Amino acid sequence: MPQPPLVLLTDFGTRDAYVGMVKAVLARLAPESRHIDLTHAIPPGDVCAGAFTLWQAHEYLPCGSIILAVVDPGVGTSRRAIALRLPNGFGVGPDNGLFSWILGPGAPVEAVELDPARLTPGALSATFHGRDLFAPAAARLANACGLADLGAPLAEIVRLPPPRLEAIPTGLRGEVLWIDGFGNAVTSLGRLRAAGEAYEFNPAWQDHRPRTVRASALRLELPSGVRLPVARTYGEVPPGEPLAYVGSSGLVEIGVHAGRADQRFNLSPGQTVTLHIEG
Amino acid sequence: MPQPPLVLLTDFGTRDAYVGMVKAVLARLAPESRHIDLTHAIPPGDVCAGAFTLWQAHEYLPCGSIILAVVDPGVGTSRRAIALRLPNGFGVGPDNGLFSWILGPGAPVEAVELDPARLTPGALSATFHGRDLFAPAAARLANACGLADLGAPLAEIVRLPPPRLEAIPTGLRGEVLWIDGFGNAVTSLGRLRAAGEAYEFNPAWQDHRPRTVRASALRLELPSGVRLPVARTYGEVPPGEPLAYVGSSGLVEIGVHAGRADQRFNLSPGQTVTLHIEG
Amino acid sequence: MPQPPLVLLTDFGTRDAYVGMVKAVLARLAPESRHIDLTHAIPPGDVCAGAFTLWQAHEYLPCGSIILAVVDPGVGTSRRAIALRLPNGFGVGPDNGLFSWILGPGAPVEAVELDPARLTPGALSATFHGRDLFAPAAARLANACGLADLGAPLAEIVRLPPPRLEAIPTGLRGEVLWIDGFGNAVTSLGRLRAAGEAYEFNPAWQDHRPRTVRASALRLELPSGVRLPVARTYGEVPPGEPLAYVGSSGLVEIGVHAGRADQRFNLSPGQTVTLHIEG
Repeated sequence: MPQPPLVLLTDFGTRDAYVGMVKAVLARLAPESRHIDLTHAIPPGDVCAGAFTLWQAHEYLPCGSIILAVVDPGVGTSRRAIALRLPNGFGVGPDNGLFSWILGPGAPVEAVELDPARLTPGALSATFHGRDLFAPAAARLANACGLADLGAPLAEIVRLPPPRLEAIPTGLRGEVLWIDGFGNAVTSLGRLRAAGEAYEFNPAWQDHRPRTVRASALRLELPSGVRLPVARTYGEVPPGEPLAYVGSSGLVEIGVHAGRADQRFNLSPGQTVTLHIEG
Repeated sequence: MPQPPLVLLTDFGTRDAYVGMVKAVLARLAPESRHIDLTHAIPPGDVCAGAFTLWQAHEYLPCGSIILAVVDPGVGTSRRAIALRLPNGFGVGPDNGLFSWILGPGAPVEAVELDPARLTPGALSATFHGRDLFAPAAARLANACGLADLGAPLAEIVRLPPPRLEAIPTGLRGEVLWIDGFGNAVTSLGRLRAAGEAYEFNPAWQDHRPRTVRASALRLELPSGVRLPVARTYGEVPPGEPLAYVGSSGLVEIGVHAGRADQRFNLSPGQTVTLHIEG
Repeated sequence: MPQPPLVLLTDFGTRDAYVGMVKAVLARLAPESRHIDLTHAIPPGDVCAGAFTLWQAHEYLPCGSIILAVVDPGVGTSRRAIALRLPNGFGVGPDNGLFSWILGPGAPVEAVELDPARLTPGALSATFHGRDLFAPAAARLANACGLADLGAPLAEIVRLPPPRLEAIPTGLRGEVLWIDGFGNAVTSLGRLRAAGEAYEFNPAWQDHRPRTVRASALRLELPSGVRLPVARTYGEVPPGEPLAYVGSSGLVEIGVHAGRADQRFNLSPGQTVTLHIEG
């Protein structure tokens, strides 16, 4: 049976050899483990973007995956370095909230503070804990060590607030979370699911019975006030036309058929969007 | 013996975790297979660029390689999803012509239409068949399933017309196919092969006996009317000077020694180029 | 025991399938070897940038690693193609100095000139030796062939001069070597090491006893004449403020907390920097 995969997410970019050095350390300490790159293009220091991307990818990872996530604007300060148990494996990285949205709000956590004395063979640099501390910790987990081998237990870790999402009388209000490489805007608006020709809409976090709504009753209001129809996929509107749709992560997205929605509507993370359900 | 490699080509970019999610699904379903990335930087929706890149790389792939190619502007529409036998392994992707130039014009094809009911464990998203349909199909092939396990046979698939290339009285006329990362323009002009100090030129598709031509008798005419000499490699002209040469894919390319030909001559795919053979 | 990893560094970029073709050849000829990408974003033809990146990463590579390094502005000219023994494994690439800074100045070298007749199965292209010559050579080394199997011995190889670094009465003078993806400038100034609250400074190449200096006695002079304080890490100065620090490669770097030093101070490789040690 192969070792569990090491899954990498960083803001290092791929211009430098930083990612390569991390992988070299991993290959030296856990030579049988596969590496899977989620992305190394998280905007520098953008912990929320990292948390979103980890959330988005998490459920597709092989069982037992060890996520090595380094978006670490506080490297070298007193921020803690941690490893923790995740629903589907383990996480290693700075204690700044990167894993919050995988864990879910309020879920208890089994975590340890990484102990450099046990993990770093040479000197710990002040600026590259990905190579000197997180990679050795992740490799230990790949080699079937437990969390307790990496450091002392922590009662709590840093958590990001969940993405904005509130039920309003006529629907749901949320925010733009991410602009993807195609220029599509992924929003925090979940709770809408295609069901045959119609949609099922479940407005509250609690597990209420969903109600069925016709596609023609749905409109997504952008920050500019423009209201878009909701369709299944790009091909249902003519080239160049915008649409809202339930994207591949189960969240409402804003797109333009064969175009870029971010440029067309000047979209960026943090902007407010509202899903209106009429009738 | 290792499993056959899974070879990836997409237009997903590497900013998002889309490629990572595809690889995660592959690693879960075919844990022993190696992944080889051809590129994820195909211009969004540019099926011809994808077809060219697959053609260019194909003959170098390990025997039995399974190509997972996703350049899919029609995702979510009625375009079919297919798997097919290739000369050197298998291909999986949308039925939009991506594999045309590997197959060659008119060659018969052994293909199936992918059946989501057999392949997609959860719900099939409307916009991310790479993760939900193509990756599971490719993983099955890596696990030694046959095409028949993936769906029903197809009599024909979508084919792109071959790149433009016609014999003219004084040589060959073709088109720019691709601008590479160094700014070199790869053209559709083949049939020219270095042979000692001279070149062998075979003007027709049929397997005619090639004729031998001196390098000094060759000129490549650019869209602007400029005519370039043909040389073996960049170093045969001074830095900053342009040249045409038979590139590493066996096609005539346009380059500038230590410079960018695309910017110097305003080159882009689709432009007409003519190889003149004088005497 | 797994085969030694194949470690790749090129200036090919990741837009084309050039790197993918190299990996395909490696996977065909050395199917069990892991690939580690250092970077494929070396500026085209910038041999010094390649040499620096190899130096930076080298000590972290697994034992026995085979480095395939292709930054090759002279491809197709009379420059030689080589393989050589490195302190920690082997290197394969053009003979243009890429491996100089791993070897160290004046160190003897065990190298061979690659023989295409033994290595290239088909025709050797004039422009893509990475695929046709260097990859087959690296794969042979991964398969436990010795250097002697690849070609005839060489008495000497091309060496780059070492980075500029000279002791001056008040400290050290050197140069900017590299701008990293975060906008930090890595300089050639080594010989400074954090030691508790102070620094140890060893001004000469010879293994002199280092002297201890207080952080407050250190200033880094930029090309513009600006003098920066030396701190341990970004977090020791307010956001937006500049600092010099000993980076993760043991060299003095110039950074801006949560900002880009290259843009702030107009920094680029080759510029002179001076470390002043006062008192």
